[in-house]
Amino acid sequence: MNSKVLLENTRKIKPIVHHITNYVTVNDCANVTLAIGASPIMADSIEEVEEITSISNSLLINIGTINERLYKSMLKSGKKANEKNIPVILDPVGVGASSFRKKITLDILKNVKVSIIKGNASEIAFIGNISSKNQGVDSDPTLDNQSLDTLIDIAKTTANITDCIIAMTGKTDIITDGKKTYLIKNGIEELGLVTGTGCMTASIVSSLAAANKTSLLEAAALGVLIMALSGEISLDSLRCRGLGEFRCELINTIGNINYNIINNNKDVEYLNE
Amino acid sequence: MNSKVLLENTRKIKPIVHHITNYVTVNDCANVTLAIGASPIMADSIEEVEEITSISNSLLINIGTINERLYKSMLKSGKKANEKNIPVILDPVGVGASSFRKKITLDILKNVKVSIIKGNASEIAFIGNISSKNQGVDSDPTLDNQSLDTLIDIAKTTANITDCIIAMTGKTDIITDGKKTYLIKNGIEELGLVTGTGCMTASIVSSLAAANKTSLLEAAALGVLIMALSGEISLDSLRCRGLGEFRCELINTIGNINYNIINNNKDVEYLNE
Amino acid sequence: MNSKVLLENTRKIKPIVHHITNYVTVNDCANVTLAIGASPIMADSIEEVEEITSISNSLLINIGTINERLYKSMLKSGKKANEKNIPVILDPVGVGASSFRKKITLDILKNVKVSIIKGNASEIAFIGNISSKNQGVDSDPTLDNQSLDTLIDIAKTTANITDCIIAMTGKTDIITDGKKTYLIKNGIEELGLVTGTGCMTASIVSSLAAANKTSLLEAAALGVLIMALSGEISLDSLRCRGLGEFRCELINTIGNINYNIINNNKDVEYLNE
Repeated sequence: MNSKVLLENTRKIKPIVHHITNYVTVNDCANVTLAIGASPIMADSIEEVEEITSISNSLLINIGTINERLYKSMLKSGKKANEKNIPVILDPVGVGASSFRKKITLDILKNVKVSIIKGNASEIAFIGNISSKNQGVDSDPTLDNQSLDTLIDIAKTTANITDCIIAMTGKTDIITDGKKTYLIKNGIEELGLVTGTGCMTASIVSSLAAANKTSLLEAAALGVLIMALSGEISLDSLRCRGLGEFRCELINTIGNINYNIINNNKDVEYLNE
Repeated sequence: MNSKVLLENTRKIKPIVHHITNYVTVNDCANVTLAIGASPIMADSIEEVEEITSISNSLLINIGTINERLYKSMLKSGKKANEKNIPVILDPVGVGASSFRKKITLDILKNVKVSIIKGNASEIAFIGNISSKNQGVDSDPTLDNQSLDTLIDIAKTTANITDCIIAMTGKTDIITDGKKTYLIKNGIEELGLVTGTGCMTASIVSSLAAANKTSLLEAAALGVLIMALSGEISLDSLRCRGLGEFRCELINTIGNINYNIINNNKDVEYLNE
Repeated sequence: MNSKVLLENTRKIKPIVHHITNYVTVNDCANVTLAIGASPIMADSIEEVEEITSISNSLLINIGTINERLYKSMLKSGKKANEKNIPVILDPVGVGASSFRKKITLDILKNVKVSIIKGNASEIAFIGNISSKNQGVDSDPTLDNQSLDTLIDIAKTTANITDCIIAMTGKTDIITDGKKTYLIKNGIEELGLVTGTGCMTASIVSSLAAANKTSLLEAAALGVLIMALSGEISLDSLRCRGLGEFRCELINTIGNINYNIINNNKDVEYLNE
């Protein structure tokens, strides 16, 4: 994973990332997209989504506050993204929480060639048809406590079933295309105390993927790593001040991230089989 | 009001709070829900709201940016919440500002058993049919300047008419089931300078109510008290830095709140008649 | 431009600003509206927008995440605002990015008497039919690099074509009614690194316009100046801490702004021809 080149490409190209996403965390998603050096555009109306996707460099679909109207726009944008050959990133927020989310997620995966799926262990396992536990939008603690080998299996199996890169976040983040796998041991569980850190991770991944179309596995791994490292680096702000400051410091850190910070702090293992 | 037990229950159970709310303050609502120890889920699509309510521990309905689509989802979720016997909290934002908001609020109250209504004096008086003054989403200053006795009467009358617990915010917050009443003298008017502090109060109330179903009056009072105290504790940040910092410090304080802070600072009177 | 009177009027009257806006930056818009001394109300449902506009002192239309439903509400509110003789401010976010945005913007301008259009050079040029370059929601760099004279021509031509005050943001902000023109040389390009600073500028303009209906050109210029100055004043926070802190400090500064700060720091040129 050549962090330097991946980051430099993003900041040089300043790619446009089309978000069709939820209204809860959308502002933070826009801000981290800018912080990492890309340009966010949020547009979800059926009348314009194809045109917006056409001028974009990647498409991020997040089902956090999905409805029938958004779903149709997602499908339309997804097909256009495939036609234009730009990466599609899917964040299946809470896919196990309702049959509607399940139906939509499977339908998107059937009709759109998704490049990267970013989710927690529950969401990834659900998509891989490995677990069907409903847990709201937070991760199933039972899954989080599985052995690393079991979790790697879940990620790889889901990658193979869906033919997507899987970016599975958790104590150890697992990013895999089913063969090559990055294990990211950075990160802190306190990231779960700020809403939208998962959504923001997907925005960072989508920004890097937009500028590095031929290195999507690396882009996904670096995106997840940046959030994990930013959590670690920002942790003092949480301890000294609290959750409001932690959220602020996360955006500071993401905006200030560079190759040296990444290289000096990363705890990443690479598996190739 | 046993703050210690109420808070500990919330942080132990980590209840899921289903929000059907406005898109203006939704992110702050999610963050304070996490800060107080609960888990927020935002979902408003008619296809899934019943399922989402079914896996939740309370339902918060906020009409801040209401429309016909959301309204139908609110009714459906409200009925499901009643069926599942989980508390429903209503935040009738700006109910006096349009006949549409009035119609929806009254219709929700007719069709759903609401446990707690959280609002400012204008909103509560409007629901109790005591005043019909339109004041946008901010409180009617004429009402705020009424004597405390008059305001207590408004709250108790509305509680009795609606058969709901009323959490009426103002210079003195009045939380009453029509018989037992908490008067909270903490709080600062500067809370009105940050958008959504009212909505966030409702999220805190809903979090505490979700974990303390048999102590809803106490949960409502503690939720309002936590925001009032957090305002006081955070006031220096406003004076030294400004409104951006004040908002940040509010979330810090809510996340750091504990029984000792509450006990050492609260200025609460309890009336039982 | 009498900053003192314009600001004092706003803080005394505390006007209600009806926003029909996008869900990405809406929370920041509400917070800066409060910070400058006005009262925001967000409402977009066709059933109530006329009533909400009727109790408001200005209407801000922002097409950032436009759809057919919002569009109908914008038209209805716009006509009501004209009837009530309150200023209408249009923020045509990314108007060049899709034919849908173009159609809606032109249709609003045809059916509603808009007082002020706030946009970047690309958006203003597009409306003036001077350029049709698609650039997502960010400004066309080619346009930004035009000479100041060319940019002033674009702003004045668009003002004359549309019969609106044009508030065109850029390296030099140009606010003109086609005859009288303010050039604001304050401001920093780093404002583009925080999402929504353009939308927030429109909220400040709308707040000042709401309280100063007979000085709309001055209100527009002061609103743009306040954001530009706040950027300059807050820049150290970006350098010392980062983007999260910069965003926080911007709100601090806007809330703390006063006549002296403005007078001591402004770099404004006035042209009358």
